[in-house]
Amino acid sequence: MLPERLSRVIALFAKLPGVGEKTAQRFALALATQTSGLASDLGRELLLLDRELRPCTLCGNIAQLGENGQTLCTLCTDSRRDSKLLCVVHRVQDLLAIERSGAMRGRYFVLGRLLSPLDGIGPDELPIEQLFARVREQQIAEVILATPPSVEGEATALLLARELAPLEVVISRIASGVPHGGDLEFADQVTLGRAIAGRRGVSERP
Amino acid sequence: MLPERLSRVIALFAKLPGVGEKTAQRFALALATQTSGLASDLGRELLLLDRELRPCTLCGNIAQLGENGQTLCTLCTDSRRDSKLLCVVHRVQDLLAIERSGAMRGRYFVLGRLLSPLDGIGPDELPIEQLFARVREQQIAEVILATPPSVEGEATALLLARELAPLEVVISRIASGVPHGGDLEFADQVTLGRAIAGRRGVSERP
Repeated sequence: MLPERLSRVIALFAKLPGVGEKTAQRFALALATQTSGLASDLGRELLLLDRELRPCTLCGNIAQLGENGQTLCTLCTDSRRDSKLLCVVHRVQDLLAIERSGAMRGRYFVLGRLLSPLDGIGPDELPIEQLFARVREQQIAEVILATPPSVEGEATALLLARELAPLEVVISRIASGVPHGGDLEFADQVTLGRAIAGRRGVSERP
Repeated sequence: MLPERLSRVIALFAKLPGVGEKTAQRFALALATQTSGLASDLGRELLLLDRELRPCTLCGNIAQLGENGQTLCTLCTDSRRDSKLLCVVHRVQDLLAIERSGAMRGRYFVLGRLLSPLDGIGPDELPIEQLFARVREQQIAEVILATPPSVEGEATALLLARELAPLEVVISRIASGVPHGGDLEFADQVTLGRAIAGRRGVSERP
């Protein structure tokens, strides 16, 4: 009943994260029925995005493809950032979230995946060698393991801490506890347990 | 901090219905970080969608642009459908929903908008003349007004019924009441009022 072209667009939209068949159809119909040229604008930009953006060769952040095939992101080329501080994250999304907080003035390393034996992702699937080389060659002073406080994230942080142990580098882990504005009454047991276990002396506060 | 290309894609995604800044960023990042070629596939298909799809000249449904500039949708060219029965809907999405029900074997007429004085949409902004001409010229026997049971939908249905009154045509309105599987306890007053007012004799049931 739908034109084949529309069905294909729906199938592609449904591959986006969190988009089901119904939402994909809503997007496709909105684009097919409006006359503002949004479909062609978006189509053109997506083709350019695919052509121009690549992972930063140093950290894995999204970057504009350079003239000579060299791709460095704005964070890796920013000379004002602390090159001795390296923050290891799972995904580019996490990097952006940390950047929004403004609390991290160092460099990043995007893992791309977390340890997850059930999904067939073992230590060999993680870019441990690249991380090791980066920490050693660039004389990093501190590695902040900012993988999420989930089972996979914790396992990955443990593995990385063990692998980096031979190097002379401070290894730290982001704090896990009751979130800002959170209510203790509704915090889950693990979070509360971590908040207690990770308690700090009051004098330590900034 | 984000490459400009990515920011532009995010801004365009945010124009899709129900998509905010955060979801748009999630889509754009997913497309920028994955290597499956989804970005270019979607980009290509959207350009073709913009080039190939047009509203059906007869009913307003989405249709593949014909060779000679003539654009008729699959529902208007399907000779097995009842040409004397015309179902008037607000949007293409509503047409598709009715088609999924399988309860309508006639033709359609997509209004594109509903009467909404607050948004500056008066009777002159509705394609009443086209509807009038279609009903008269194609000797339609029954017009089913299938605009939604909202304030705007009801107002539009009333207006259309009045405008079509001079023609010799049965004008009907879709039933409004407690939905299938719905609980009377949680139905709102208006819906329950309509369910009572629109009650049918038990013998009428199919």
